[in-house]
Amino acid sequence: MIEKVEQPTVNDGYRNFPMVPKVVFGKGSFDQLEQILAAERKDRAPFVFIVDDIFENQPSLVDRITLKFNDKLIFASTIEEPKTTQVDEIVKKIRTEYKELPSGIIGIGGGSILDLAKAVSIMLTNSGSASEYQGWDLVKKKAVYHVGIPTISGTGAEVSRTCVLTGPEKKLGINSDYTPFDQVILDPDLCMGVPKNQWFYTGMDCFIHCVESLQGTFLNAFSQSYGEKAYDLCVEIFLSDDLTAEEARAKLMMASWHGGMSIAYSQVGVAHALSYGLGYVLGTKHGIGNCIVFNHLEEFYPDGVKLFKQMMEKHDIDLPVGICSQLTDAQMETMIDTALGLEPLWENALGNNWRDIATREKLRELYLKM
Amino acid sequence: MIEKVEQPTVNDGYRNFPMVPKVVFGKGSFDQLEQILAAERKDRAPFVFIVDDIFENQPSLVDRITLKFNDKLIFASTIEEPKTTQVDEIVKKIRTEYKELPSGIIGIGGGSILDLAKAVSIMLTNSGSASEYQGWDLVKKKAVYHVGIPTISGTGAEVSRTCVLTGPEKKLGINSDYTPFDQVILDPDLCMGVPKNQWFYTGMDCFIHCVESLQGTFLNAFSQSYGEKAYDLCVEIFLSDDLTAEEARAKLMMASWHGGMSIAYSQVGVAHALSYGLGYVLGTKHGIGNCIVFNHLEEFYPDGVKLFKQMMEKHDIDLPVGICSQLTDAQMETMIDTALGLEPLWENALGNNWRDIATREKLRELYLKM
Repeated sequence: MIEKVEQPTVNDGYRNFPMVPKVVFGKGSFDQLEQILAAERKDRAPFVFIVDDIFENQPSLVDRITLKFNDKLIFASTIEEPKTTQVDEIVKKIRTEYKELPSGIIGIGGGSILDLAKAVSIMLTNSGSASEYQGWDLVKKKAVYHVGIPTISGTGAEVSRTCVLTGPEKKLGINSDYTPFDQVILDPDLCMGVPKNQWFYTGMDCFIHCVESLQGTFLNAFSQSYGEKAYDLCVEIFLSDDLTAEEARAKLMMASWHGGMSIAYSQVGVAHALSYGLGYVLGTKHGIGNCIVFNHLEEFYPDGVKLFKQMMEKHDIDLPVGICSQLTDAQMETMIDTALGLEPLWENALGNNWRDIATREKLRELYLKM
Repeated sequence: MIEKVEQPTVNDGYRNFPMVPKVVFGKGSFDQLEQILAAERKDRAPFVFIVDDIFENQPSLVDRITLKFNDKLIFASTIEEPKTTQVDEIVKKIRTEYKELPSGIIGIGGGSILDLAKAVSIMLTNSGSASEYQGWDLVKKKAVYHVGIPTISGTGAEVSRTCVLTGPEKKLGINSDYTPFDQVILDPDLCMGVPKNQWFYTGMDCFIHCVESLQGTFLNAFSQSYGEKAYDLCVEIFLSDDLTAEEARAKLMMASWHGGMSIAYSQVGVAHALSYGLGYVLGTKHGIGNCIVFNHLEEFYPDGVKLFKQMMEKHDIDLPVGICSQLTDAQMETMIDTALGLEPLWENALGNNWRDIATREKLRELYLKM
């Protein structure tokens, strides 16, 4: 989920990076949500909870959400990554049901839900469709107060300045100073029921991002320090035998957090570029797509790929194989075009002369291995 | 400077920690200050710059501060650590000179100046004396917009939720949600002229804090991850031979930042407790005081003290010796009382039965070594 693809060149100095202004961390801290919201409630304006529909039949979480007055709970599907049309529909539903703007939007789920919640909070105060705001700094008005509560770790969506959406024309984030959450609650216990494969792929979203940014050419000491910490935590979580499950959950939550912070002044690389190609042509989701690609990138990231293979083996993860074997020539060309179009990623990974290394033939060869 | 001495027990859940909402990092980023302030200026309300008077005759920094309209530059002394009376005087001066509240306060300097700037911004909107707000969450009104620009690294004051002040009755921070800066600019180049001893003592403020909090009993994964990163950076900066001066400056700025973040859910220990005793009786400043004390704490922090001694040797640092040899009995008793009064620090360091280990005789023996 972490992505910087849309990042423009900065000509007028260093980016003034917005951080989440309030954060609670702790086992069981989810129960502090009610008290936190009480201080933000405006008269009769409701809080709207956007919750991953995976929890729809899980009273262990849903029963802990207190709806007061006219508060509303919306279950949202994450079978596909979030769309601008999905954002527009939720915003329309809220506007139709309530005369006033909500007191706040609370996203409870993985990266897709968190991005959806960020986008809805923005579109409640900005007119038109979410698709009009995909890009860099197009949002003009402050979003409604919004809270992010992750239930799986690795995407960095809880701390990032973007929310990635699939629009009618492009998959691109709404990247603005108004995008980050006003409040985040980090309760490692909420990640207890995550299935193993999803836990792994999402954790690797963080690890792969760190490998790419730390080895990239666009790094400074700020992003490096966050990226190194996230990387070290991933190695500890996925390769050490010394952690309890509880410790590993808490540490992975922090790895995701630091990984998300590290994107402030860094950029991803080869894995993300190729993974975007897979996503565009085959609809492969971000987490698993990065893993499928990264598994074949020894020549670009030898140390990172070696560790990744050890992690896969230790946790008995099977990745799909041969996913590109049935592609038509036209599909393969589109995939290569999509990947090569992400110039800043290639430049970050391979320097100015990246075109000499990342040839169409090279990419075809890599895709055919996957 | 980092300190949590005043921290109360939390009975109603985990602390909801405020983070600095905007940060710029980068070599030369100081020059972006003018542009950042332009967006925050309110009509005729001035910006007030509080600058360490060490820069009074250094045009290389002062000439880069653009005063517009009725903006004001105040040079402040840091020979002593900041006092509530100093805060009250600056606030009175600003109120006398201007009819309106300032557009903002900008602190440029080390931990003392940053704490002074935070306190002034709070006291401009809250009535009475700064001494009435020393403690936990006593501030009722939002501070004036305030910007922190460190010129030496290690205190963590640029990111912390407190500003430590010496009042008529106590040395204690104004610890509140309104204390953190609204904007921080991290420009490693501003630390270029720091004298070696001061560089070392202030860097060790960060290192010693991390040793104490990481080895303490009050830690969680959030603070641990920040503390570990700050610790690792300090080891790299002060012991490796592979860094350029420029890289080391940038990394130390990040160590201070992460060290400051790590105090969210952690506590200091034996070194800070004993150092407070020195400060109270002898007026020893925080950075050097921590070093003098820590040098004799092998039995409590064996790994940390070993590294510390290597760092001292590598950088050819001489610490004062025999500073307690001339104390009267009464002074020694006061020093011991001051140190032992900081119960949460001892409990963090040594557990519930700390009184069995930290006896008066033990403390006297340690102080006499210093």
